[in-house]
Amino acid sequence: MNTTALLDEIPIARAQRRWLYTFDEIDEAQADVGGEWDAVRSLLGGKGANLGDMTRLGVPVPPGFTITTAACNAFSDGGGVLPPGLWDDVIAAMEYLESTTGKEFGGSDEPLLVACRSGAKFSMPGMMDTVLNIGLNDDVVERMIAATGDERFVLDSYRRLIQMFGGVVLGVADEHFEHVLRARRDAAGVTSDAQLAAADLRDVITSFHAVIDRRASQPFPTDPFVQLRMAIEAVFESWRSKRAHDYRVAAHIDHDLGTAVNVVTMVFGNTGDDSATGVAMSRDATTGEARLEGDYLINAQGEDVVAGIRPTLPIARLAEDMPGVAAQFAEIAGTLERHHRDMQDMEFTVERGRLWLLQTRDGKRTAQAAVRIAVELAGEGLISREEAVMRVSADQLDFFLHPQFDRDAIASATELTTGLNVSPGAAVGVAAFDPDLAQRWVEEGRQVVLVRQETKPDDVHGMLAAAGILTASGGRTSHAALVARQFGKPAVVGASEIEIDMALRSFTVGSTQVHEGDWISVDGTSGHVYSGQIATVAPHLDDEWVTTLLEWADEFRTLGVRANADDPVEAERARAYGATGIGLCRTEHMFFDPERLPIVQRMITAQTLAERREAVDALLPLQRGDFVGMLRAMAGDPVIIRLLDPPLHEFLPSFDDLSRSAADLRIRLVHARDLRQVESLLDELTEVRSMLDRVDRMRETNPMLGLRGVRLGLRIPELIRMQTRAILEAAFQVQAEGVDVRPEIMVPLVSHATEMAAARALIESEMAVIFDEQGATLDVPIGAMIEVPRAALTAGEIAEHADFFSFGTNDLTQMTMGVSRDDAEASFLLDYLANEIIVENPFTSIDGAGVGRLMELASVEGRATDPNLTIGICGEHGGDPASIARCQRLGLDYISCSAYRVPVARLSAAHAALSS
Amino acid sequence: MNTTALLDEIPIARAQRRWLYTFDEIDEAQADVGGEWDAVRSLLGGKGANLGDMTRLGVPVPPGFTITTAACNAFSDGGGVLPPGLWDDVIAAMEYLESTTGKEFGGSDEPLLVACRSGAKFSMPGMMDTVLNIGLNDDVVERMIAATGDERFVLDSYRRLIQMFGGVVLGVADEHFEHVLRARRDAAGVTSDAQLAAADLRDVITSFHAVIDRRASQPFPTDPFVQLRMAIEAVFESWRSKRAHDYRVAAHIDHDLGTAVNVVTMVFGNTGDDSATGVAMSRDATTGEARLEGDYLINAQGEDVVAGIRPTLPIARLAEDMPGVAAQFAEIAGTLERHHRDMQDMEFTVERGRLWLLQTRDGKRTAQAAVRIAVELAGEGLISREEAVMRVSADQLDFFLHPQFDRDAIASATELTTGLNVSPGAAVGVAAFDPDLAQRWVEEGRQVVLVRQETKPDDVHGMLAAAGILTASGGRTSHAALVARQFGKPAVVGASEIEIDMALRSFTVGSTQVHEGDWISVDGTSGHVYSGQIATVAPHLDDEWVTTLLEWADEFRTLGVRANADDPVEAERARAYGATGIGLCRTEHMFFDPERLPIVQRMITAQTLAERREAVDALLPLQRGDFVGMLRAMAGDPVIIRLLDPPLHEFLPSFDDLSRSAADLRIRLVHARDLRQVESLLDELTEVRSMLDRVDRMRETNPMLGLRGVRLGLRIPELIRMQTRAILEAAFQVQAEGVDVRPEIMVPLVSHATEMAAARALIESEMAVIFDEQGATLDVPIGAMIEVPRAALTAGEIAEHADFFSFGTNDLTQMTMGVSRDDAEASFLLDYLANEIIVENPFTSIDGAGVGRLMELASVEGRATDPNLTIGICGEHGGDPASIARCQRLGLDYISCSAYRVPVARLSAAHAALSS
Repeated sequence: MNTTALLDEIPIARAQRRWLYTFDEIDEAQADVGGEWDAVRSLLGGKGANLGDMTRLGVPVPPGFTITTAACNAFSDGGGVLPPGLWDDVIAAMEYLESTTGKEFGGSDEPLLVACRSGAKFSMPGMMDTVLNIGLNDDVVERMIAATGDERFVLDSYRRLIQMFGGVVLGVADEHFEHVLRARRDAAGVTSDAQLAAADLRDVITSFHAVIDRRASQPFPTDPFVQLRMAIEAVFESWRSKRAHDYRVAAHIDHDLGTAVNVVTMVFGNTGDDSATGVAMSRDATTGEARLEGDYLINAQGEDVVAGIRPTLPIARLAEDMPGVAAQFAEIAGTLERHHRDMQDMEFTVERGRLWLLQTRDGKRTAQAAVRIAVELAGEGLISREEAVMRVSADQLDFFLHPQFDRDAIASATELTTGLNVSPGAAVGVAAFDPDLAQRWVEEGRQVVLVRQETKPDDVHGMLAAAGILTASGGRTSHAALVARQFGKPAVVGASEIEIDMALRSFTVGSTQVHEGDWISVDGTSGHVYSGQIATVAPHLDDEWVTTLLEWADEFRTLGVRANADDPVEAERARAYGATGIGLCRTEHMFFDPERLPIVQRMITAQTLAERREAVDALLPLQRGDFVGMLRAMAGDPVIIRLLDPPLHEFLPSFDDLSRSAADLRIRLVHARDLRQVESLLDELTEVRSMLDRVDRMRETNPMLGLRGVRLGLRIPELIRMQTRAILEAAFQVQAEGVDVRPEIMVPLVSHATEMAAARALIESEMAVIFDEQGATLDVPIGAMIEVPRAALTAGEIAEHADFFSFGTNDLTQMTMGVSRDDAEASFLLDYLANEIIVENPFTSIDGAGVGRLMELASVEGRATDPNLTIGICGEHGGDPASIARCQRLGLDYISCSAYRVPVARLSAAHAALSS
Repeated sequence: MNTTALLDEIPIARAQRRWLYTFDEIDEAQADVGGEWDAVRSLLGGKGANLGDMTRLGVPVPPGFTITTAACNAFSDGGGVLPPGLWDDVIAAMEYLESTTGKEFGGSDEPLLVACRSGAKFSMPGMMDTVLNIGLNDDVVERMIAATGDERFVLDSYRRLIQMFGGVVLGVADEHFEHVLRARRDAAGVTSDAQLAAADLRDVITSFHAVIDRRASQPFPTDPFVQLRMAIEAVFESWRSKRAHDYRVAAHIDHDLGTAVNVVTMVFGNTGDDSATGVAMSRDATTGEARLEGDYLINAQGEDVVAGIRPTLPIARLAEDMPGVAAQFAEIAGTLERHHRDMQDMEFTVERGRLWLLQTRDGKRTAQAAVRIAVELAGEGLISREEAVMRVSADQLDFFLHPQFDRDAIASATELTTGLNVSPGAAVGVAAFDPDLAQRWVEEGRQVVLVRQETKPDDVHGMLAAAGILTASGGRTSHAALVARQFGKPAVVGASEIEIDMALRSFTVGSTQVHEGDWISVDGTSGHVYSGQIATVAPHLDDEWVTTLLEWADEFRTLGVRANADDPVEAERARAYGATGIGLCRTEHMFFDPERLPIVQRMITAQTLAERREAVDALLPLQRGDFVGMLRAMAGDPVIIRLLDPPLHEFLPSFDDLSRSAADLRIRLVHARDLRQVESLLDELTEVRSMLDRVDRMRETNPMLGLRGVRLGLRIPELIRMQTRAILEAAFQVQAEGVDVRPEIMVPLVSHATEMAAARALIESEMAVIFDEQGATLDVPIGAMIEVPRAALTAGEIAEHADFFSFGTNDLTQMTMGVSRDDAEASFLLDYLANEIIVENPFTSIDGAGVGRLMELASVEGRATDPNLTIGICGEHGGDPASIARCQRLGLDYISCSAYRVPVARLSAAHAALSS
């Protein structure tokens, strides 16, 4: 957080040498810093500002005052000496407390006790120091016992003071005090300090004094004012402690902020049955329901509630135990919620029937509660709909999209290993090591997790069948990760500790062995992998509050949200999730269909143009069928269909597999028994070698930068013609059914305007033929996928031939950074992230300085050529909130992401619009 | 060429309706168009302007006039009608010619004959029409015969007129006239037209008239003015002919330029022994020597010299035959050379002892002549040294750097095939199919051409031994091409028609088979491959004129010229060629040394840090030795040493080879006869499989974008430390010898400023240790290789951690365009170049819109951070003239290229400086 700017406000107060403010002087403090609440927090710290604020609201807060952060800085600047005037002000403030409470600091039968608490602007849990019960000494203790009759309570308070003061102020390690307590418990035969009797506590106090005499440079001060002064100085010193310094470095907190010190009148919830202490939320933090939720204990101290020594009571019971207090508390909770315009998490104490609020802050909540509370607060008029939308994070919404493991069940589960959490959600199933088995088991009604070294296009049927996916290698954008996210399958990839033995049909992690068929549980949200079956819980996206929130998000967002979908089922899902268009329909997935693959291979390995044409023609009706379904599913919305993109050898058997087959056949030949067998094997070998030869000729050193995309299309124009025809014929067919069809054609891997022009000419010439055949025309925009750096650099020229741009940020990232996604995450990219050479995985969130800069350049120059150019993004980044915010800043028209990510994208787009 | 701008000048003349200028009105023509010579050429065409110019110089040119291009355009605009006034002007001009020559057009005993020649602004050889001997008819012919007594000459002139007029003006196909001539030759029993007697020619003329009567729409016009008018119209028409149109499209000549028409008095070199015709150069076009060079024939026509019917005489003989004419011609040649400030190519005719110049133009010349002429013209003060430098092209200079095939020998050679001409020069040798054999044969004293499917780092020893290299696959930046250029070995790669059969140790091209040991000749300049031994000629770079020219170039250039060199021998060669520094010393080539490779492999496959350290330490003294040699060789000049760049698996055996070995071992196991053999084979198989496993783990899908460069260095910091130490220790050692050492360290594949910072920190920390050990320091700049698009996009940040930038344009091109150089040239890139989707091979000349833009951005932003940042280029483009010009425009400090390319780079850098 950037705190420097706020520091500018502090000198106002510092110049006035106003070292402290009582809680009821909050208005003056605010006026002194110019009125901004943030400046008040800079001056008084978070806790001090909050206590003052509650006081102002009329909430009963124990009287007290706050010594400013400016005083802390003056203390530090002055070499550890309280600045002139401060102590006088403290004495005056103590007199004010005495007059307000009617108690006397260091005297009388009802002595004033105070706590001295640190409180910096930003919370630094556990880093800073606190001393309670200041004001007690041997003399005061006896008079107080005499007055209250509660010897044990007073003695316990005293021993706590000595212990905390000894630790915080005098620097005696706490273990010495704990040692005394342990010895006393053992001697008394009890197990907790609360069981120690008054006599025991007297012994403890004596021993504590002895510890201090032996270990500290000075004895425990009996003068309450000396106690107070030393405590204040100790808190100031604690700001400069090593652990606080380290914490600030880690949390990016400015070292110059300083801490405030709050001196607060002690109140006690353990002074009898008319006393109590507790914590409560103004709404249910789990469900978000608008009712008080919390726990309390009668006759107890705050720490007892946390320690769990006695079973706590639900806050609803308070109405029975203390009806007046309960009503007052409910009213205060409402007041605080209205004031802070959010659900509050409050600490309270009841001292002899009187309610005191010790703290309030915005409460932590589950994702479900966050959504419901935001929507209901807006419904109550406490916050605007815009604020409601801003209050729910993308991560919180994402929770609704995937089943999760039950929290309690996880706590007792056996963790096997951890990999990359590439696709969120919980999956449970029996391990299956190949896609065919996975599919068969699922058909038999079993629940399966597909476990693979890595996945390939051939594995997709198994991935679709499985409940989840686990791979031993591969990165955040490996095939497994991409497909898993695409289909919303929970997945953990790159779990490199896993060693798969396909011969044994098992995998091992260290000494643990998991056999095929054994149950495993995979958490794609966290990346953890467990053995056995863990119970899951399934939140629902059709939750009324989620639906409302997303409707509001749609009102505020200016970016369109489309989906990447390759078939009608996905397209329908995307639409159900709120997508208004398909930003990327990949046609290659259609080619991997087992029925079609042989035709595709025939096309690739064709020796003559006639052979190739025959194969291409055979694909036409199949492709047309694909597009018919897509266009029907997306009636009225645009469907961007990308022409075939991947290198052709992806459709052929792998070179390594073929080599192995050839080697095996040779061995079998050696063992052949008769001539017929020899001949049959020879035939087989010849065929394998011929395919091996063809595959070898198509092998590329860097396929990513090879013959693919538009390069392939211009080399095999029949392919572009066939795909154009399939799209157009499908469009006319569906249009004839009365459906509003809006197909668009996208050309992949464009790097030169001339390429785009050539592809466009091909598409348009085929379109002209079809229009002629149909006796009708159709407006089909033709656009360029911007995924090669050169395309971004020459976007102004490319825009002359393109109706729209779509950023393919996956490949653009690979080429701009010179990083192969298939290899990098398994090797140096993880090191780079660990060593902060790269701060954010560029395949998760757009690399601003490189890829983002190219996107900006392309957007600006593309629109300079054609102000009506539609620009979108269809890379994986289209579902990433930070990337969506970037797209908003760049003025893109829409984002496109996987169907499952659409709700998150809608919300993120609203966030981006509202933040801009 | 851009002609539109010049056209703006023409309206001046057009407005004045001045349709023609006589040759001696050249000053008026020039004044009318505003004085610029280029505008004169626009108006009068190249030939007309030239004839006028010679006339103005006092050179004897046959009188004549030029009808302007404006008239041609008016003719075209008017639908093929001569514009008003033109014909009157022509008649007036003809009267002027009559008065000047004392002859009469269409009459008298000495009739005026004229030629009507087209002449556009830019030469369109053979595209436009000419009619000679206009003015003859049956009547004039007879009177002329009577007057001259030379019946045969007059009749021959007449039949030529009819034939040309018939063809050009009347549109009768020339074959009809040729048919008549052939029949007559057969009847007369002679073989050439020159042997036809007067009587034969009279028959021919009668037959020609008959041909025209039968085939043309009108008879041959007897009125000389009708002849002239029709000829002028025909020339104008010819501008619009299809073939002229097509030529202009191909040559990028504007269709609106129009052609001028030159009407020139005919002069005849065939009117007796006091007549002659010839062509001559003002200097020797082969050697450049300053002496007239040319040929002539006594009593002949111009075309006879070209036709080679009689043996021509050398121009030196003219002094004997016609001393006066010879002296006059020599003087005119000098005048024209001084006027045009360049060697002239002249056509002349002597008619009855009187010399006429018909044409002069800058002469074509060999590369040697170009250099000598340029230097000598500057020496004579005719041109400046700057102009001399500008007049020699990079290609001409390149000629001096490589032996070439003898031109005559090539004419009779048998061409086998053609591939990519990747490294110029001629190589002759016996084909050797593997590097070991190549090396052995060379050691045995044989001359070898290494023939491979493609080359790999393992092949380098064979490539170095061979005279030249031929590969069947690979592109312009394949390994073979890079190494060949690096070492100046002539090479043709990607000769895809070649099919190598390693079993037969032969290759075939179509039906031709070449066995290992057969002689072949490879022309790396043209890409042609021949069978057999072709004689070569070896030009010399130490030619005094080349040396002078390059010295002048060095004076004018502002770019530094460094070399890419990996060892001391190369470094010394680079220095001899004029390099003042090493821009790129690749350390990986040092790793491929057969002695070192096992250590390198040990380092790569090390299982523990200790093992790795041991291997790295073993490499240290070897690397230090490399650097000692480099630094000694380049005393006083900077030597940029690049840290290890390639992916480590390049140092390991190939996966495919290992797989094959494993398969073979399995088969041998099956056949094993006894247990000992089984065990030995099993051991071997285990080892192969273990290596296979390690290689497999290091395999990358796209190694180009993988774990290499700085990524590797940060992963194996010992490597960076070792290389830093080797460089520094070498530097101190050589410095102790009294040598001025200037090592610099370059970090490859940087894409993030943080990477550069991390690498720099590592290098500097090791340097600090060494400085401490040595008790001395050394200034060693540390720079970044800019070869990833992101590095260019974030150059401003990277410059904070780099002392210099060096553009690695090979990889920058690959990533910016998304093109893998190993694959692309063999596939789509050639198609793209053929189809003009890409105009220039981006691996030869920098792609301006993409890569060039990134370079500009990086230069500007790098220098914005650090104005003293040194910026250079070390990609292959560093030796390309167009790319060097770009580097000049970008304000780079130096270029670096292979040693053999240094002279060309020096000249190109001078060109770039002088052009800017």
